[in-house]
Amino acid sequence: TGSHSAEAESQTEWTDVQKKIIPWKNSTPSLDLETAFQDRAAKLGKSNSRLIVVASLIDKPTNLGGLCRTSEIFGASALVVGSLHYIQDKQFQHLSVSAEQWLPLVEVKPSQLVDYLQQKKTEGYTIIGVEQTAKSFDLTEYCFPEKSLLLLGNEHEGIPANLIHHLDVCVEIPQQGIIRSLNVHVSGALLIWEYTRQQVIKQKQQQ
Amino acid sequence: TGSHSAEAESQTEWTDVQKKIIPWKNSTPSLDLETAFQDRAAKLGKSNSRLIVVASLIDKPTNLGGLCRTSEIFGASALVVGSLHYIQDKQFQHLSVSAEQWLPLVEVKPSQLVDYLQQKKTEGYTIIGVEQTAKSFDLTEYCFPEKSLLLLGNEHEGIPANLIHHLDVCVEIPQQGIIRSLNVHVSGALLIWEYTRQQVIKQKQQQ
Repeated sequence: TGSHSAEAESQTEWTDVQKKIIPWKNSTPSLDLETAFQDRAAKLGKSNSRLIVVASLIDKPTNLGGLCRTSEIFGASALVVGSLHYIQDKQFQHLSVSAEQWLPLVEVKPSQLVDYLQQKKTEGYTIIGVEQTAKSFDLTEYCFPEKSLLLLGNEHEGIPANLIHHLDVCVEIPQQGIIRSLNVHVSGALLIWEYTRQQVIKQKQQQ
Repeated sequence: TGSHSAEAESQTEWTDVQKKIIPWKNSTPSLDLETAFQDRAAKLGKSNSRLIVVASLIDKPTNLGGLCRTSEIFGASALVVGSLHYIQDKQFQHLSVSAEQWLPLVEVKPSQLVDYLQQKKTEGYTIIGVEQTAKSFDLTEYCFPEKSLLLLGNEHEGIPANLIHHLDVCVEIPQQGIIRSLNVHVSGALLIWEYTRQQVIKQKQQQ
């Protein structure tokens, strides 16, 4: 059918994008690196993380590098960035402390985000915007689905209105101070943590 | 008694330290600033935060500036730093986005930390080290007391052994990746958030 073709095309498109993952495979990994990667896979296999962190709207290499480190540590399945060129940036590298060698990075340009989010919806992901809106859930009350995709906003403009329509839900962090908003790396870290915490608790309940 | 005298001396000592709080009072606040401060006090009055964040062991102005912003936003009662000179640092200011105007900052040098922690214990605070040790509680399982003091470790050396003995408890963040540890600002932010989340839930249960 027509819709099947469209879906197939779309999948092809995103398969192409995902081929841009920076792979440790492109280099010849040493035995140590291979062992470390196997350890990571084993650990992540246990944790069953199905969390995708989308940082395509973020401009600052420091925030992207920090998010790369934090996403890797909590076993996110991928970090999506607006351009893979950021990885060459010294500030990115200083903050990521080489996490980009272990965490799959995917390039999705801001102009491609609508299509990407639609594609991930068809794969069963819930699209969660980290943004303060009139309809946002409070982070203390939101229960993350197993397949969660976090969309982080730009440092200055947050998530643009045309993308808000494509989200399944918005989640906001309750804030008490005078300073209006958290740094985007910190906001992202708190949602990544909250997803992880909930998954850990679910796994303990199942045992 | 002798011990009372010692305590009195100790209190005098820390009252002196606390006079070094950077006060918005030293300048003549505009009406806008006064209104904003009253708003903050009203908000914080509701939240009843009794959280002290101790960052005296932290060296990097970026981490301190970031912690200042995050601590202010979550309504911590104070941020303790090793030197108030950090506030003049451009990197600190870039990351703090002026949060130091609203959050009480206290100077406690690393060499004064043992005495400071003892003093806070006598005031009813639980001294919580953010550190991976054999006896650390997992952050997903730790229940924060209302009066919590978080001691964050140095970027490279963590919390030195001589200070570990003075803690009531250590809490660690469960980590799954290859990269060994979170940035200290992010670690601090996750504990500040977890304290806040638990307080919010307690307040809702009491209503």
